[in-house]
Amino acid sequence: MSQLAEFLATNQNKNVEELKELLRIPSISAQSEHKEDVQTAASWIADKLKNIGMEHVEVIQTEGHPIIYADWLHQENAPTVLVYGHYDVQPVDPVHLWETPPFEPTIRDEKIFARGATDDKGQLFLHIKAVESLLKSEGKLPVNVKFCIEGEEEIGSPHLPAYLTDNKEKLSCDVVVISDSDMWDKGVPAITYSLRGLCALEVSLHTANTDLHSGSYGGGVQNANHLLVQLLSSLHDTNGKVNVAHFYDDVVELTEFEKEQMKALGLDEEKVKESLGLTDLTGGEKDYSYAERISSRPTLEINGMWGGFQGEGTKTVIPNEAHAKITCRLVNNQQPKKIQELIKKHLEEFAPKGCTIKVSLQDTGNPFLTPIDSPMIQKAAEAYQNVYGKSPVYKREGGSIPIVSDFNQALNVPVVLMGFGLPGENLHAPNEHFHLENFNKGILTICSFFELIKK
Amino acid sequence: MSQLAEFLATNQNKNVEELKELLRIPSISAQSEHKEDVQTAASWIADKLKNIGMEHVEVIQTEGHPIIYADWLHQENAPTVLVYGHYDVQPVDPVHLWETPPFEPTIRDEKIFARGATDDKGQLFLHIKAVESLLKSEGKLPVNVKFCIEGEEEIGSPHLPAYLTDNKEKLSCDVVVISDSDMWDKGVPAITYSLRGLCALEVSLHTANTDLHSGSYGGGVQNANHLLVQLLSSLHDTNGKVNVAHFYDDVVELTEFEKEQMKALGLDEEKVKESLGLTDLTGGEKDYSYAERISSRPTLEINGMWGGFQGEGTKTVIPNEAHAKITCRLVNNQQPKKIQELIKKHLEEFAPKGCTIKVSLQDTGNPFLTPIDSPMIQKAAEAYQNVYGKSPVYKREGGSIPIVSDFNQALNVPVVLMGFGLPGENLHAPNEHFHLENFNKGILTICSFFELIKK
Repeated sequence: MSQLAEFLATNQNKNVEELKELLRIPSISAQSEHKEDVQTAASWIADKLKNIGMEHVEVIQTEGHPIIYADWLHQENAPTVLVYGHYDVQPVDPVHLWETPPFEPTIRDEKIFARGATDDKGQLFLHIKAVESLLKSEGKLPVNVKFCIEGEEEIGSPHLPAYLTDNKEKLSCDVVVISDSDMWDKGVPAITYSLRGLCALEVSLHTANTDLHSGSYGGGVQNANHLLVQLLSSLHDTNGKVNVAHFYDDVVELTEFEKEQMKALGLDEEKVKESLGLTDLTGGEKDYSYAERISSRPTLEINGMWGGFQGEGTKTVIPNEAHAKITCRLVNNQQPKKIQELIKKHLEEFAPKGCTIKVSLQDTGNPFLTPIDSPMIQKAAEAYQNVYGKSPVYKREGGSIPIVSDFNQALNVPVVLMGFGLPGENLHAPNEHFHLENFNKGILTICSFFELIKK
Repeated sequence: MSQLAEFLATNQNKNVEELKELLRIPSISAQSEHKEDVQTAASWIADKLKNIGMEHVEVIQTEGHPIIYADWLHQENAPTVLVYGHYDVQPVDPVHLWETPPFEPTIRDEKIFARGATDDKGQLFLHIKAVESLLKSEGKLPVNVKFCIEGEEEIGSPHLPAYLTDNKEKLSCDVVVISDSDMWDKGVPAITYSLRGLCALEVSLHTANTDLHSGSYGGGVQNANHLLVQLLSSLHDTNGKVNVAHFYDDVVELTEFEKEQMKALGLDEEKVKESLGLTDLTGGEKDYSYAERISSRPTLEINGMWGGFQGEGTKTVIPNEAHAKITCRLVNNQQPKKIQELIKKHLEEFAPKGCTIKVSLQDTGNPFLTPIDSPMIQKAAEAYQNVYGKSPVYKREGGSIPIVSDFNQALNVPVVLMGFGLPGENLHAPNEHFHLENFNKGILTICSFFELIKK
């Protein structure tokens, strides 16, 4: 890799200057006044891909913001990597809290400050730079590479899933690599190998045909709030387990290795308590550690509930309706739609006498898991080791990024989440930034990964 | 009573014309644009009291609307009756639903239509007419009479309770008579001998110092909604009884006579179900009949509860606070402030681990009961029998009229609620009216009552 190393050393400043160009484009996907800016960012990326030598570059218009495709497929016997990233960014409010303007990239303390610096322009651009560096220093790539880049990640990727299922052939590959996540700590890389899935429901409960006066009817008729409390209290048992039949049937338990990994990470519960102002972390299942519960166990949360009078003072009303919003975080191999049905069935079965209930099924998102011992994960780990001198930690993320499992399911290949961000880089917040060390090491790590997986 | 009967027969039309005058004054206490009208009504009443021969007539200004006092105290050895009523009325919206304008009293089918016709100008005025008729036909009253009339009943009587406690001597009497309630049915008089009291609380429950993301923390930390559900579900047992220690300690059970009375009234549960769109009336305590539960049993109702997200769609939030508003209907001899403390103690004791709770104590109102066999109730029953040819039914009202027990407690005498309204006379609604038959019979009944209680 000496030619490559030389090329990178020579071009470090130029790479950062180019990243600044991209960061200057206010491609906020959520705000219609920035629609043109999002297009500009897409064109900028497409031009860049052409300039570095990628082929079949396309800007695919959608009803929202465009998807960009490009490929380089000249290694017939080598595997194909598909790189996903996004060029859209979050809004910048509250602007007055930014130390330097969000779209005027500024370097301080070896960090580049700008909206999108780490999420995800910086992390996406390092892949483009890895490909450029390899092509320009060695004339070819060790593997085949496809890019699939979207401009709607921050608004929930409304058009990408359909694009994936409609273009399975075109996007076919051996591995999907995404850099849109965090390292564990400064100098300690991380591979996120699991994300939780999601399903959402709403339940509405009705009693009489109108709210009733608690003087005239109190003690005689059912109160929708009382019945909802009764119904909701049936959803968990006293050990914090979800009390819905068959809810846990498909849950894959942690392997011994995973448990060891999780323990080794040494999550500091005292620090968590302090930051949240809590005296204990006793939510969820009693039989599992906090670290397990927030990442590898499924949950059922009442995100909202309401019924009756919420105004100031007193209203002696017996409400005739009450509502609750419920979401679950799900883990492999739970199926969101199956879980929704189980919960619906439970709610209907446990509905107290004297009311009618209506359950509406809402969003779902699949959980995602690439086993730690899968070859692609192991090659990514080796690449980190080569560049950072340290094996990555393997972590499970409690949140959901539905697009990850969409790639997994549409293309039926492992997805490797190689994060180069650092915790505390203020994504979605003022003063977002990205450590330049990880921008540069990220380019090297991706180059190394490509080398390692070639056959 | 022949002189009296003749006087009444002669003056029937004149009495109705005078009632119309009073009904023409739009004395809506809740609307500041009618402040002068309320004063006008007060002056009208005061003038009327002077004209009929009442003495010491006073219009007592308050920070709101005036209280009117008057007396006639020339029967040294006879008891003293204090008559309470109110000359203020409810607003008239929606005006377009009135068949004739609310302040243009109109007679149709022997009913007088106007705002305040039955609540309470008509029912108050019949007392004034009874006194006038006796004074003018017989030159004197059989008993001593005091009037205490307010103009703020429809806005919760903010100034009357203090007036009562500050003027115990002046208002001292042997019985308070109030006509601001209903008969049982056409031709069937009723005495309301019990009202439920009231107490209100609000409970707020807090967990972490902020709402949390259900991906990052779900399964690890407590959800305020879950804890509130747990807490609220502790308030009732599976038999519908309030599960707060000592809640029922002071409850006076119904006497056998009361139970018989209640049964004899034959409340039509099928009709209630139909009107409310319910298939059963299973709220409250399983061991008591519906009729008992809505009138003679105390209740605890969650009038409102809320926590977390109530908007459209899904928000994967773990709420850090949740709230509930609670009111109880109370019966003799429960003490509202004691009950509040018991509930507060329960909420604090049952507060789940992992949260802090705050309980705020709000309004209270005492329950009211004058025993059916008390002499004043029996005399009132006799008066009804004399005029209507029928004994009244004795009923308990599930609602609360705090001012009734305020009289009871401040003056330490029985209060007799002799209603002359009829169910369906649209009080607080468009097309309020009062049956003239009961206006005329009401005058006679009050005259008869005065005669019956003189020693």
